[in-house]
Amino acid sequence: MNLKKRGKQSVIFYEKPRLIASAAIVGDMEGKGPLGAHFDIVLKDDTWGEESWEKAERRMFQESVNTAVNKCGILSNTINCLLGGDLLNQIISASFAARELEIPFLGLYGACSTMAESLLIGGMLIDGGFLTTCACVASSHFSTAERQYRFPLELGCSNPPSAQRTVTGAGCSILAATAFKEPQPCYKNIVLSGGTIGRVIDFGINDASNMGAAMAPAAANTLKAHFEDFSRSPDDYDLIITGDLGYLGSELFLELCRENGFDMNDKHMDCGKSIFFEKQKIDCGGSGCGCSASVLNGYLLKRIEVGDIKRALFMATGALLSPASSLQGETIPSIAHAVILERR
Amino acid sequence: MNLKKRGKQSVIFYEKPRLIASAAIVGDMEGKGPLGAHFDIVLKDDTWGEESWEKAERRMFQESVNTAVNKCGILSNTINCLLGGDLLNQIISASFAARELEIPFLGLYGACSTMAESLLIGGMLIDGGFLTTCACVASSHFSTAERQYRFPLELGCSNPPSAQRTVTGAGCSILAATAFKEPQPCYKNIVLSGGTIGRVIDFGINDASNMGAAMAPAAANTLKAHFEDFSRSPDDYDLIITGDLGYLGSELFLELCRENGFDMNDKHMDCGKSIFFEKQKIDCGGSGCGCSASVLNGYLLKRIEVGDIKRALFMATGALLSPASSLQGETIPSIAHAVILERR
Repeated sequence: MNLKKRGKQSVIFYEKPRLIASAAIVGDMEGKGPLGAHFDIVLKDDTWGEESWEKAERRMFQESVNTAVNKCGILSNTINCLLGGDLLNQIISASFAARELEIPFLGLYGACSTMAESLLIGGMLIDGGFLTTCACVASSHFSTAERQYRFPLELGCSNPPSAQRTVTGAGCSILAATAFKEPQPCYKNIVLSGGTIGRVIDFGINDASNMGAAMAPAAANTLKAHFEDFSRSPDDYDLIITGDLGYLGSELFLELCRENGFDMNDKHMDCGKSIFFEKQKIDCGGSGCGCSASVLNGYLLKRIEVGDIKRALFMATGALLSPASSLQGETIPSIAHAVILERR
Repeated sequence: MNLKKRGKQSVIFYEKPRLIASAAIVGDMEGKGPLGAHFDIVLKDDTWGEESWEKAERRMFQESVNTAVNKCGILSNTINCLLGGDLLNQIISASFAARELEIPFLGLYGACSTMAESLLIGGMLIDGGFLTTCACVASSHFSTAERQYRFPLELGCSNPPSAQRTVTGAGCSILAATAFKEPQPCYKNIVLSGGTIGRVIDFGINDASNMGAAMAPAAANTLKAHFEDFSRSPDDYDLIITGDLGYLGSELFLELCRENGFDMNDKHMDCGKSIFFEKQKIDCGGSGCGCSASVLNGYLLKRIEVGDIKRALFMATGALLSPASSLQGETIPSIAHAVILERR
């Protein structure tokens, strides 16, 4: 057996699982952002005709899978495994969607790092020969997150300028083994070649309205581990994508990278900074699992497919707090997982 | 590459990851149950000297890992990956424990199926060559679960007779690749040989005080898939262990198995039925991730190690509801994951 463990925290994929299709569904405000034209479905109404925001989020999760599998001409219930999660307590968006989709299901919780966590585990399970196909999914919804994590929307509370807006969005990537033949190709050129499992890092930030600052050290830590494990540097990548550090978190991340000896120059892109226009007045940018999930699956994968980007590191970050942990005086531990996406 | 996918939902491990050590920590009431003597640590006070029940649960999670790694003479931060979760919102027990343990972390949410989910994913990652060692962990705590899912304990609400008691317990299994040499052996004979990924099943039960009934169909469904995928029957196992169906759920499970054509005879054991004495008056038995995690890691693995049990199927079940989904009128979707534990 080939050892696919690389260095301290990383793994390498010799079989290079293919990323054969993707889909992204977003809310109205995200649809009006700079990437609006790239999303498969843009909601006009954030309940999507459902009785509650929670049911709308679940449907976005579910339809992102259905939309992605349709693109490669397969049925959702022929997918071997669904890996994913969301921000709601007990990940009900994912679990209830899995009930409707009838796909064997592995529930994950990585807060906003979930899209990268699902690709990393999905990649390992396909590269290891345990699955032929899998769907990797993450979702979030502004209105479900606000009332669970912060205040009832009806209160109309205002945010401090460091706050980010939870993206209403769901994204799904379909992974497949080399031997799998999809009836109808969507992406022909994208493979996963490895990744890095994150460690939980806590720099003592306790301001739940400044999650970019809490997550930046985790992103810098995972990136350092990744470069060490693969003996690589920013030069080896066309783009290094963080999930939702936002404006403030991205600045801190770049500073920590410089301290670690890595000059990122123009290689860094943050999904939270990219999903809204500045004129939309979203303070520090977007956040939530759905932020990196929709930007990756709606926009970035197309750029890899056409060859604009040859090798990218997708590194989504998650703040692992809960309202209960904050009330009990805890700081905000964070994590970042990374996967390498390549044009083959 | 050997295809390790077997049938529709199952996987087979050719390298047979070893289960080299385990530990279980439980609360006072669990310590007074029939398996009390088997647990590594029994709490006298369910805060364990911490400021809150949540902090106590986190410490149980963390110390179950430290206790297990100590038994095989290694340090926790040399473990390649921590896989696990708990019942608290945003799995804060697992995430905060991972911060202290400094092990690369993959957060899972499978409700009470988490112990089986972590062993199944951990087994695949080791069998696939991605990790050399990993810790698979799950925890729950009566007092943190009551106030999150039901009522403040101070209210003193009484339960219907169908209710189960959330076990205060944490359990950890250490998995290792064949090539790994632990300085000090704890278990020498236990391997994982495969497993089955569960699908989300919902028979329309909406009584959150009767979770055994909600979970029984998921257990029966996974068992049927397992037997079909491996062309096996109850005869091929010495013991088929469910997580926390309790008294009522176990009856339903056995009935569904008979309907599916499998007579379990005396092969079935439920952790929820085994952890308390009847005289402890725990209504329908124990529940929570910590129930199957502590019974497996405290008691069952020792029986496999000494040869009382040659081949067991460990199948933990999870009810994937949240208080919000119940308030919105939803039924209770459930899942069961299974792993095969063998004496080699």
